[in-house]
This record gives sequence, C-alpha cells and structure tokens, in this order.
Amino acid sequence: MIYFDNSATTMPDGSVMETFLKAGTRFFANPSSLHTPGMEAERLIEKARAQIAGLIGAAPDEIIFTSGGTESNNLAVKGTAAFYKGRGRHIITTAFEHPSVYEAFLALEKDGFSVTFVRPDENGIVRVKDIEKAITDETIFVSVMHVNNETGAVQPVEEIGQMLQQYPGVSFHVDGVQGFGKVPLHLNKACVDLLSVSGHKFHGLNGTGFLYKRSGVNVLPLFSGGGQENGLRSGTENAAGIASLARAVRLLHNENPEKLRKITGTIREQLNTRNWAVVHTPIQAAPHILNFSVPGVKGEVLVHALEKEGIVVSTTSACSSKQNKPSRTLEAMNVSGEQAASAIRVSISRYNTMEEANQFIAALDRVVPVLAKKRNERK
Amino acid sequence: MIYFDNSATTMPDGSVMETFLKAGTRFFANPSSLHTPGMEAERLIEKARAQIAGLIGAAPDEIIFTSGGTESNNLAVKGTAAFYKGRGRHIITTAFEHPSVYEAFLALEKDGFSVTFVRPDENGIVRVKDIEKAITDETIFVSVMHVNNETGAVQPVEEIGQMLQQYPGVSFHVDGVQGFGKVPLHLNKACVDLLSVSGHKFHGLNGTGFLYKRSGVNVLPLFSGGGQENGLRSGTENAAGIASLARAVRLLHNENPEKLRKITGTIREQLNTRNWAVVHTPIQAAPHILNFSVPGVKGEVLVHALEKEGIVVSTTSACSSKQNKPSRTLEAMNVSGEQAASAIRVSISRYNTMEEANQFIAALDRVVPVLAKKRNERK
Ligand SMILES: Cc1ncc(COP(=O)(O)O)c(C=O)c1O
Ligand SMILES: Cc1ncc(COP(=O)(O)O)c(C=O)c1O
Repeated sequence: MIYFDNSATTMPDGSVMETFLKAGTRFFANPSSLHTPGMEAERLIEKARAQIAGLIGAAPDEIIFTSGGTESNNLAVKGTAAFYKGRGRHIITTAFEHPSVYEAFLALEKDGFSVTFVRPDENGIVRVKDIEKAITDETIFVSVMHVNNETGAVQPVEEIGQMLQQYPGVSFHVDGVQGFGKVPLHLNKACVDLLSVSGHKFHGLNGTGFLYKRSGVNVLPLFSGGGQENGLRSGTENAAGIASLARAVRLLHNENPEKLRKITGTIREQLNTRNWAVVHTPIQAAPHILNFSVPGVKGEVLVHALEKEGIVVSTTSACSSKQNKPSRTLEAMNVSGEQAASAIRVSISRYNTMEEANQFIAALDRVVPVLAKKRNERK
Repeated sequence: MIYFDNSATTMPDGSVMETFLKAGTRFFANPSSLHTPGMEAERLIEKARAQIAGLIGAAPDEIIFTSGGTESNNLAVKGTAAFYKGRGRHIITTAFEHPSVYEAFLALEKDGFSVTFVRPDENGIVRVKDIEKAITDETIFVSVMHVNNETGAVQPVEEIGQMLQQYPGVSFHVDGVQGFGKVPLHLNKACVDLLSVSGHKFHGLNGTGFLYKRSGVNVLPLFSGGGQENGLRSGTENAAGIASLARAVRLLHNENPEKLRKITGTIREQLNTRNWAVVHTPIQAAPHILNFSVPGVKGEVLVHALEKEGIVVSTTSACSSKQNKPSRTLEAMNVSGEQAASAIRVSISRYNTMEEANQFIAALDRVVPVLAKKRNERK
C-alpha cells in the first residue's frame, strides 16, 4: 500500500510507540502525587516539556499539553475570547481555516462576538493588508493558519504577526498543525502568541498535542479541575503520551522537509504535462501537500479507483470528506464547484519515496483515461 | 513495591497496552476518511462503542469518547449549562465533588449561574431531601458523584435520580469515575442522564474515557470542529485509545469488586483495634477505598514514612495533595482541620492482595510509634 494521506493522519513511528509503551508501564503513577513514583512521572513530563520548548524556541512554561490539534485550537480561540471579552468583542480569522478554528469562531459568533472571515487571493493565500483592514477598536484576536490542510498554501503569518505589533490589544493565534516541522516558523520573529500542534500529524500518537502560549498572553481554560498545566488544562496528565510526543517532535526536527518537496515536485511536474489535470496547490506551498483536480471525474471516484491500485489518497480533508461538503478552501479561492468536487489531495511524509511518486503517476495514467471514458459514455 | 494509590491512577493492564499497540499500528488511518484503512479504523471505534454500550446497558450512540474524566465532567457540566441556560440559571451539586466538577461549577458561577453546593451528613453522604430542597423553578442541572474519591462514600444517586423524575426540566449528571465497575449502578433505574468515566482509573490508559449521554438529553460541545462523536467532541478520533478502553472496560466487568472489600475490610478491622487510628470511610462505601487518620501525624509525613517501607499511598486526592489544600470532602464532613491534615487514603485494585494488606498493617505498626515519639519529643 502506498499511503499518501499523511495530512489526515500518519502511522505512529515505531520508536514513538515504544516510548509510550515503556513510559506507560514504568511511569504510570499520578504526576500530581507526593510519592516517588508520582514525582518520577512528573519529571518525565517536565523533561518532555523542556525538550519541546527547546526545539521550538520557547520557555517550558509556555507549553500546554492537550489531547490534539482540535483541543489546542479550541483552547486558543475560545480561551482567548473568554479571557479578553471585556476589552472588545470582534475577532478575525480567514475563510479557509480548519473546522476546529472555523467552527469555534461560529460558536463565538452565536455567543455574541462579531467575526470577520477574511478571504484569500486566487492562490488561497490571505493578504496581510486584508487582515489589517478588518481590524477595529473592538478587535481582540486574530487567528490565521500556517499551512492550509487542503492545498498546502503557506500563509504570511510572519508578516501578519509583525503587522499586529501595532495593535497590542490583539492576540495572534496560528494553527500550526499542518506547518509544524514542515515549513520554518520563528515564533518570535512572527510574534506568535499562540500556536497549535497535533502529534498524529507527524508520526506521533493520536490524543497528543500541545498549545504554545507566549507568557503574558492569557486564556481561560476549557477544562476546570485539578489545576494541572498551570491551571490551563486540568486532568490527570497523560505522561506516556507526553513523553511519546517529545520523541515525535525530536524525530521531526531531525528531518529535512525539503526532501518531501522533491517528491511532490516530481508529481507536480508530471501532472503539468497531462492535459487532464489542474493543480490547485500554489508554488508557495508546504512541501508535503499537493492538491489537484481531474475535471469531470469526482474526487471520491478517483480515490476509490486509486485504492484499487493500492494507493491511498483523499478528497481534500478527512473531516469534510464524509460529510460531502464542498471544500471551503477551494471555494474561497474561487475554484468552481464542479472543479472543487473533483479535487484530491496527496499528502506525504518522511516514509514516502520517489519510487512511490512514480507509481502514483503511472496509476493515474492507467486510471484517468478509463474514468474519463466512462464519463463520456454516460453523457 | 506495594501500590495502594489506585484511585489516583492505575498501572495499565498488559493486554490493554497490547490492544493499543496493535490498533495504533494497524488501524492508524483517519476514521473520517473515505478509503478502506479509514473505514477499518472507524469500524474498530464502532465495535468498541457497541461493546461498552452493551456492558453498561446503553445504546451505542449514547457514548461520547473523550480524553478522560476531567473532560467528561466539564463537557457534562458546562455543556448542559450552556445548552439549557435559556430555561434557567440555577444548578446544584455537592460540597465534596472532585475539582473537575466543583471548579466547573465555580466557573459557571462566575459566568452568571447561581449555584447551590449541598453539604453531606457526617458520613460524607448527601441527603436526597437536601438536594430536593435546593431545587427551584430556575434549576436546570444536578450533579452528584457516585463514589467519593477521598473517602469512598457511596452517594444515593439512584434515589436522587428517581426523585428528579418529578422535575423533568432538570438534567442529572453523575461523576462515575470512582464508582464505575466498583459499585453497581443501573443507568435506567437511577435515571442518570449523563455519566462520566475515566479509563486510567481501572487499568486503562491515560487520555481515554467517555461520557454516557442519554439520548434526548442535550449538551453543547466544548470542542468545535470536524463534527466527530455526533458533533459533540470534534477532533481526529483516538481509535487505538478507544479500542484499548473497550478492552479495559471488558476486563473490569469480569472482575468481582467484592474481592476488594475483603482486603479493605481487613485493613479496616485491624485499624479499629489500634487506638492511634481514626477511620473516615463510612461502612456504606465503595470496596476499594479506605481513608483514615493517625491524629497528630501529618498525612504527608506518614506517606513518606510508608514509602520507605515500600508502600505507596496518598494524602487524600492526588489533585489537592501538592497544592497542600485541606480536603474539601473531610471539611464538609465536619472532620477537624487537624484530623483532616493527617488523613491518608489507601486505594486498591484487582492486582492487590490480602498479603499486601497484612504487610501494610505491619508497616504501620512499625512506623506509627516512631512518628508519634518524634512528635512528642518536639512538643
Ligand atoms: C490545519 C489543521 N488544524 C487542526 C487539525 C485538527 O487536529 P486534530 O486532528 O489533532 O484534532 C487538523 C487535522 O485534523 C488540521 O489539518
Ligand atoms: C471522582 C473523580 N472524578 C474525576 C476525576 C478526573 O479524572 P481524570 O483524571 O481522568 O481527568 C477523578 C480523578 O482524577 C476522580 O477521582
């Protein structure tokens, strides 16, 4: 099987699983307990926290461990809004965020916040000046994803963060779930206040993730309780999961993401020579995602046909694939509804090879003419 | 090491860990994806859901998988309050809930809800009539834990649930984290609307748990996003964690909790013959918890002395142990501050033995006179 759906989720790395197994068996005690086994579990967590902080250029107490990207995004969006709502009730995001940001904004809108969803250009990239234009005296929060999960488009978060320095009352959140470790992001240069990260997107375990929160920036917690994670995320800590996450982050940071670009670059080049393909991913994109359409062939039909060839890809994002909703991202780029319905996403990881890319192209060359013929017969 | 801190957390069962490892490696794909690996992961989740539902007498779509007890409690408390706040803004709980319920109520109080914290009798058991007296026309929610995590006291949740049938506008939540599988609870007889369960309290993995939500009862989600778990808990599902949780629930249901009572019963009997011990756990208690004081010896001093003897116990709950807060539960029972400060909790699981109980008593017999002597010398 060729697995090209790494933006949906990745296979846990063997050594990540091993860390989980060892830590879970040996350091199972409650990190909040006074006894030695509890203190050992706590040390394991603090070691993991310091390692991750070191790798991303943060202080340890700026890392809040969570259950994944969706929790991190909700904590950032709803937590900031709840904390600062006394200052103002206007919040800004883009029209093409992941549902865990987008729907959180809609929930806040129902709660009385006023929301601006900024649209991107035809490459799916938001303009800094459009974000700035949206700012009012009431604005308290801006959330812009680093890398779009459907097209791989890289957003100008560094420029947005710097622009926002003129608006000290506005907190800046970046959904880093797809970009983390794939596209460089300097937290201080980009003046990021909050960054969401999810372990299972880079060969870590599902149920692990963190929110970076710059010290001095405040959020209200989603979970009240025992006061773990500095009071911002109560609940008995998942020490084994946290240790496994640190391992996954370390592996990711040893990886050269530009190797991924050679593979997606080859696929892109090949698709550019086929008259039946339209690539939606802009050149300024993350190295691991390539989104394209075979106009006239429904995305899900192509997904199933490729699966018969032993290749796993997806129709845009996993979340919207079952609900059969049109892609909000492609819509925001003014891609026609018909073309959006035929989009598929290839997303790779360090375990994919150039050989697999060639097999993928060869499979498309076999499959597409057959599907196109079927379609023409139906007409 | 004799591990007597199972109410703080348990060692994951080997077969639970194995299920996690196998499922995590084999069924790692995104359950929301259209392709076969995704559908296989989804089937794994639905199998786990059906198994758990079957074991607790619920329908599969009444199970919402979460990251643990704290999340389940917060979703139940805040989610119900948010959904029904249009109907009324008065909510009721007890004075001795776990912080993940208690603090959630305090957060709602800050948000404009009016809260009644009902106090228990001197055994730490709340009276049904005191709950009923607290109900007003504005009441929308009652939350009472099944088994107290510090003393093991069993609350009359069945009677409360039946009494609440006269108040159809009131949803009834039970924090089942300590009671689950230890003390029988019939969801229908007790008219429970919401029940919180946490995997790591019964040899499951940290980061796993669920909320039972009776169909027809509504909550607003804490996590907005991709719409997983019927829209009530977005986020890529932790399929391996969910499968491992089903395994832990199955093992728990094969266990006879009354075996645990023999062990705590022996400890209780022995303590009753020592003039230096005061037992706080009432007779009507769960089989796995025993809380007692050695008046004049600080709880943490006894914990450390026992640890030198190779025995791990805790000062009441893990959450409050580090913060050095007095026990809210003992306080609500009118136990004096001094006696509460000397309380320790023994909590056992199916892996503990009668032999360990005897060793524990022998260790206390060695340690207590030494500590008492030191104390008298200081006086
Ligand atoms: C950009 C982006 N943000 C957030 C998420 C949510 O992360 P998680 O699945 O860990 O909840 C995803 C993936 O699902 C994503 O691609
Ligand atoms: C009664 C009770 N409720 C809730 C919790 C919280 O569960 P978790 O640690 O899974 O968040 C605990 C234990 O910590 C508990 O004992």
